[in-house]
Amino acid sequence: MTTAPVSSTLELSTLKINADRLNGTIHETATFGAALRFGPGPTETGMARLALDDNDALVRQYFVKEAKELGCKVTVDQLGNIFAVRPGRRAGAPTAMGSHLDTQPTGGRYDGILGVLSGLEVLRTIHEANLTTEFPIAVIDWTNEEGARFPKSVVSSGVWAGELELEEAWSLADINDPSKTMKSELARIGFLGETPCSYEAMPLGAHFELHIEQGPILEQSSKLVGVVLGAQAYRWYTVDVYGRDCHTGSTPFGARSDAMLCAAQCIVASNKLAKEFGALASTGILTLEPGSTNVCPSHVRFSLDIRHPSTAELHRLCDALQEEMTRIGSKECEIGCKVRTTLDRDSAAAVFHDDAIIAVRASAASATSADKIEEMYSGAAHDSCPVSMRVPTAMIFVPSKDGVSHNPVEYTSPEECALGAQVLLHAVLNYDKMRTA
Amino acid sequence: MTTAPVSSTLELSTLKINADRLNGTIHETATFGAALRFGPGPTETGMARLALDDNDALVRQYFVKEAKELGCKVTVDQLGNIFAVRPGRRAGAPTAMGSHLDTQPTGGRYDGILGVLSGLEVLRTIHEANLTTEFPIAVIDWTNEEGARFPKSVVSSGVWAGELELEEAWSLADINDPSKTMKSELARIGFLGETPCSYEAMPLGAHFELHIEQGPILEQSSKLVGVVLGAQAYRWYTVDVYGRDCHTGSTPFGARSDAMLCAAQCIVASNKLAKEFGALASTGILTLEPGSTNVCPSHVRFSLDIRHPSTAELHRLCDALQEEMTRIGSKECEIGCKVRTTLDRDSAAAVFHDDAIIAVRASAASATSADKIEEMYSGAAHDSCPVSMRVPTAMIFVPSKDGVSHNPVEYTSPEECALGAQVLLHAVLNYDKMRTA
Repeated sequence: MTTAPVSSTLELSTLKINADRLNGTIHETATFGAALRFGPGPTETGMARLALDDNDALVRQYFVKEAKELGCKVTVDQLGNIFAVRPGRRAGAPTAMGSHLDTQPTGGRYDGILGVLSGLEVLRTIHEANLTTEFPIAVIDWTNEEGARFPKSVVSSGVWAGELELEEAWSLADINDPSKTMKSELARIGFLGETPCSYEAMPLGAHFELHIEQGPILEQSSKLVGVVLGAQAYRWYTVDVYGRDCHTGSTPFGARSDAMLCAAQCIVASNKLAKEFGALASTGILTLEPGSTNVCPSHVRFSLDIRHPSTAELHRLCDALQEEMTRIGSKECEIGCKVRTTLDRDSAAAVFHDDAIIAVRASAASATSADKIEEMYSGAAHDSCPVSMRVPTAMIFVPSKDGVSHNPVEYTSPEECALGAQVLLHAVLNYDKMRTA
Repeated sequence: MTTAPVSSTLELSTLKINADRLNGTIHETATFGAALRFGPGPTETGMARLALDDNDALVRQYFVKEAKELGCKVTVDQLGNIFAVRPGRRAGAPTAMGSHLDTQPTGGRYDGILGVLSGLEVLRTIHEANLTTEFPIAVIDWTNEEGARFPKSVVSSGVWAGELELEEAWSLADINDPSKTMKSELARIGFLGETPCSYEAMPLGAHFELHIEQGPILEQSSKLVGVVLGAQAYRWYTVDVYGRDCHTGSTPFGARSDAMLCAAQCIVASNKLAKEFGALASTGILTLEPGSTNVCPSHVRFSLDIRHPSTAELHRLCDALQEEMTRIGSKECEIGCKVRTTLDRDSAAAVFHDDAIIAVRASAASATSADKIEEMYSGAAHDSCPVSMRVPTAMIFVPSKDGVSHNPVEYTSPEECALGAQVLLHAVLNYDKMRTA
């Protein structure tokens, strides 16, 4: 490979990604797993490209082939994470751009995919300009981010970061066919590599991820680029409220232990307390027994999803909420109910790295006007969350129409996708200049 | 039939039902439909005697045979209501004691049954004492009060009162076998009578009903007899809350239309408003969509059961609640939800008759001490509710252990059953003396 040295700051700052090529690649590769047509247009389908299925194999083969044509060395690790590394002037761990190519069963064309294909577009742009970066740069496809087929999300970046054991990931079974595991499917599609899945075996110098926001914040504030400072901590609880069933007509309030009233009071309290803490609280599942119009429920079970950008604040809120729900159970709902909470998931906040954030912030400022940029936290988890435990990491968000994601109609315009890729390009080039080793 | 005239007030006031005979009859006839054993004792089963099934036929045959042996004329109307009438000194519509012999599929030994069999015990007591009342007295078994097999409760007393059409009742289909209707099953078991089911064809002079309370009020206040002044009005609503589903992590409160939060706020508000009105409000059913921990629901549907002793107050409360839920939908739950209510049932309050209440009150006062008597409203509907639209009516309640009913372990002690029957006896005799025509 022969490339010219980076000659000047001026030359770099004018470098532009190719918007048509990027959007062409997004929609051409969507044929690998297109599903759920919702309109007559050529791009009006969603995606059903589940981790390690035949379509995932096809898009992986495409990605490897394209990266190799750009002079990359491609490494596949034991969990099928694909690292396409383009050499720099100096040796060292690459400055990486990573996301995922798998989707939900009723997913869209942008979630994860935009991040990997924009990384590929960045490589193409640099390659086309015949540039050599100071350090190697890489594009990564992280395996099974969605956790839709093998039910653990952000799993392979998690193993890479040492947050999870390889064997646990390997043994995850297909939710529809338990005879298939992540390991057996990796072997079947030819992506069970030999390189250990680890930040030590496959070190990175930094990690940048372009992703659709999956929320309404940018769109509602007429912003175009989100500079993502971290991802919220979250906890998932199952709350069980135990009362006593009784006849709705013949049981006065003073004799009731009404589990539904208690659960409703707890949900209202979770919302109120979350607001006081600048947090989020949500109930997405609720079931009750016995379930008859004229019988007060004896048992209500509901989910609580609590989030805050600060892990410590999240814990303070959860403690306060626990206390308040116990108080409601014993004091508020007539003669009282028992409230029992079970912690199902506990995820600390991801705090992104100042240097990586600086590189993104400067790139965004050169790509669009200051009033189109929002500094924000990610509400959802991404591959960048575990990765940020090990290397300087930051993310870039672009708008999601109506805040919709995990849905066939998920949409980010071609211009917005191109702007995101442009910010990704210069974030990587900025960081490359900032690196000393 | 030859009976002696009622000779004196003294003689009447010392008349006592036979407690052993009553409780023997309750448990002997429970063999017709005994089910759901919950203990080793001979009476430790529940009941599954559904309206017009083979066991209902057997207990009806028993009732007719026993009534005839007591000198009664037995009339069966077009809905199988059985009127067993014992002549009085004068002609005229009988002073009746009525309830029902059918049960829920997982019912107990007392609900309804106690009222009919206590009526039979009153007849036996009067017959044994060789007394003749001034007016005829009757015991009635109303068909399908429960509405468990043919899904409309209080149906045959409702048709008798002109609240419902005969054809509608006849065409009610067995919920487990739609080829069978109330009419076909009445014919099959030999209880499709020719007398029109109507208060005009089969007039009554009054209606007294002894029933288990099915609630905790008497037990909790250590009372033994409830003098029932009426039955609460009630309305059943289905409430649909429509919001928009969104990601629990990436959607700030300010952008949410969270149907679960809105529903919880509405349920809490229904409880608060009901308390202000001296009413009851209950939610026994709640379902939501789509149902995932990290997705705020787009649609929640819940039941609302609202009750008040006064129909007018119930309507005022329902209007206020409707207004409050609309306000919550538009103002409280972030950017708002649509709240739509559908009225599924609307039942006016039953207001029992002063004269009938006086007869019960006096009887209770002579049977037990004043501190054991509670004046109260029925929370549930009973045959006496439609009947009270046409003739002077009152009810007598006896305690339900733990307020439990519609359950195999439903329990009222032999002493409590006997006291109830004793109050029923003298309520009828008191009223007989009060009647002028």
